[in-house]
Amino acid sequence: MPAYEGAACILRVSLLKDLEIGNLLAFAESDVLLRIERQHAPSQWELSVQQSGFISVSSEIETWRSLRVGVLTVSDKASQGLRDDTAGPALSRAVILIGGIVEEQSIVPDEKETIEKKLRHWVDQKDLHLILVTGGTGLSERDVTPEALEAVAHRKIPGIGEFMRSRTVYYTPRSILSRGLAVTRGKSLIIAVPGSQKGALECFEAVVPVLRHGVEILRDWEKECGH
Amino acid sequence: MPAYEGAACILRVSLLKDLEIGNLLAFAESDVLLRIERQHAPSQWELSVQQSGFISVSSEIETWRSLRVGVLTVSDKASQGLRDDTAGPALSRAVILIGGIVEEQSIVPDEKETIEKKLRHWVDQKDLHLILVTGGTGLSERDVTPEALEAVAHRKIPGIGEFMRSRTVYYTPRSILSRGLAVTRGKSLIIAVPGSQKGALECFEAVVPVLRHGVEILRDWEKECGH
Amino acid sequence: MPAYEGAACILRVSLLKDLEIGNLLAFAESDVLLRIERQHAPSQWELSVQQSGFISVSSEIETWRSLRVGVLTVSDKASQGLRDDTAGPALSRAVILIGGIVEEQSIVPDEKETIEKKLRHWVDQKDLHLILVTGGTGLSERDVTPEALEAVAHRKIPGIGEFMRSRTVYYTPRSILSRGLAVTRGKSLIIAVPGSQKGALECFEAVVPVLRHGVEILRDWEKECGH
Repeated sequence: MPAYEGAACILRVSLLKDLEIGNLLAFAESDVLLRIERQHAPSQWELSVQQSGFISVSSEIETWRSLRVGVLTVSDKASQGLRDDTAGPALSRAVILIGGIVEEQSIVPDEKETIEKKLRHWVDQKDLHLILVTGGTGLSERDVTPEALEAVAHRKIPGIGEFMRSRTVYYTPRSILSRGLAVTRGKSLIIAVPGSQKGALECFEAVVPVLRHGVEILRDWEKECGH
Repeated sequence: MPAYEGAACILRVSLLKDLEIGNLLAFAESDVLLRIERQHAPSQWELSVQQSGFISVSSEIETWRSLRVGVLTVSDKASQGLRDDTAGPALSRAVILIGGIVEEQSIVPDEKETIEKKLRHWVDQKDLHLILVTGGTGLSERDVTPEALEAVAHRKIPGIGEFMRSRTVYYTPRSILSRGLAVTRGKSLIIAVPGSQKGALECFEAVVPVLRHGVEILRDWEKECGH
Repeated sequence: MPAYEGAACILRVSLLKDLEIGNLLAFAESDVLLRIERQHAPSQWELSVQQSGFISVSSEIETWRSLRVGVLTVSDKASQGLRDDTAGPALSRAVILIGGIVEEQSIVPDEKETIEKKLRHWVDQKDLHLILVTGGTGLSERDVTPEALEAVAHRKIPGIGEFMRSRTVYYTPRSILSRGLAVTRGKSLIIAVPGSQKGALECFEAVVPVLRHGVEILRDWEKECGH
């Protein structure tokens, strides 16, 4: 059964229990993601296709909570409208892969305190699950994103930065110079990737297999999800 | 000549000099380890088999000082007797590979200050050569082992954490999230690995080829051992 | 056309513009480096061969600013004349690969404050572009080079240390214990590699493809160089 993005369908899901509106259905061995929209009758739910693909009847299904995501673009030029931000929108599209719904999106200049303030607000007030920061991870004089993340961090996750670099070094040796990193603040996961669309997506894709799991542990959702 | 674990043998070791009771004999190209127990006559020593295997007469032999090891399990549940600690005992058995003798073993809850206190005691009072800490390296709210190690550290050895992750990522991508690390305090080497038996052993095995060497450098034993 | 080291040649370079005395000409797909010495006539320049090799007429040419380099050897023994420093001179020869000209060279003991003072002087007074530090990155009691770099650092570049280790681990597993690292101070790049000639060169070679680029970004030379 093909599932087209944007389409809605009504499914008899008699085998699934504990369905909750807003949750996602993720199909093993495919990228298909359906969002639970509303209930029409007992065991009859309306679902919308978030990510299309082909569903096999025998697929195992996981129910995912959707992740509340923030995408922060750090760029002097983009914040002044002097260049288009393509990395931020590209990340916003990519997070659906892990069940992410973008709730906050912003562009700030390369100012350490401005970045910190935004991160604190998104964690402490908005309680976002995952924040992706793009830009400011290089060596230019104005690049201070790593320092801003460290300033708001409660704990560091060194393996995410390491792995983003060790994976993307095959695309370009210059990734060695990228200072991407991940930290936690409270129960929120904050990850900084490069500012170019290509670099941002390559780094995001390198760690995407574990990001959802990271959030689930931080939020203590593990048991619920049956992992 | 096969050497069985637990067995004792009396060996004429006329070619070896500077034998010292308590030291270990390590055979190149095999995992066999014999412990020097006592002297019966000139060039006649009683040895006990610590790690069994097959010894060839032409094997090169290194004399190893035994390493005084501590194994610290960090787990709220295990410290309350609510789950069995299997990682700690597994590490205790594994350290014989590098000539380690476990002198201290303990289980503490995931409390940063409790972990720090135990590490300080084992280094400053007990002068252990190597401390293996298992548990508390993840992202759960209670996981604070890396922060405890950093608090007692005099120097950090980033390559050990990096290598534990880059090696074990082949077993599971989730190892990226593991915050394992190594530090020194005085002349002691402290290494934190994950809390699951599988994760603890995989990480230990990733770095085991260099752990003994690390201790030898910290203790300035290098010259004596002829390396 | 072969270009021999030490030789000088007068070249008609009608296609190149913006030639500046002291800059280097780097030939793509070869290691040849020529230094622009003086102008004899319009489009006629005297060049000296810094690094020899074979130049093809169709080679693409980049003009490089020469990098002002400092090489600091950290070693108690070498600073007292008790052993020859071979790593420092080897690095001094190797930097020509990236257009480096050694302007400062020094040997200091393994004293954290002495190392810091030298680094501050070379950055803040001498404005060197790149400083290579060899020695003091191990686990011996006296090894404090990483701590000295961190003390003078404005920003850290974790990927350089990571990559030096992950590359050289194929030569020797012991590279895991090496605490090599890179930091920036102002617009200067400071990199610490091991003290042995072999270890120093292996680590330098691991990251050499990105060092020049790192300096160019720090100095904001990128645009000029047409990258």
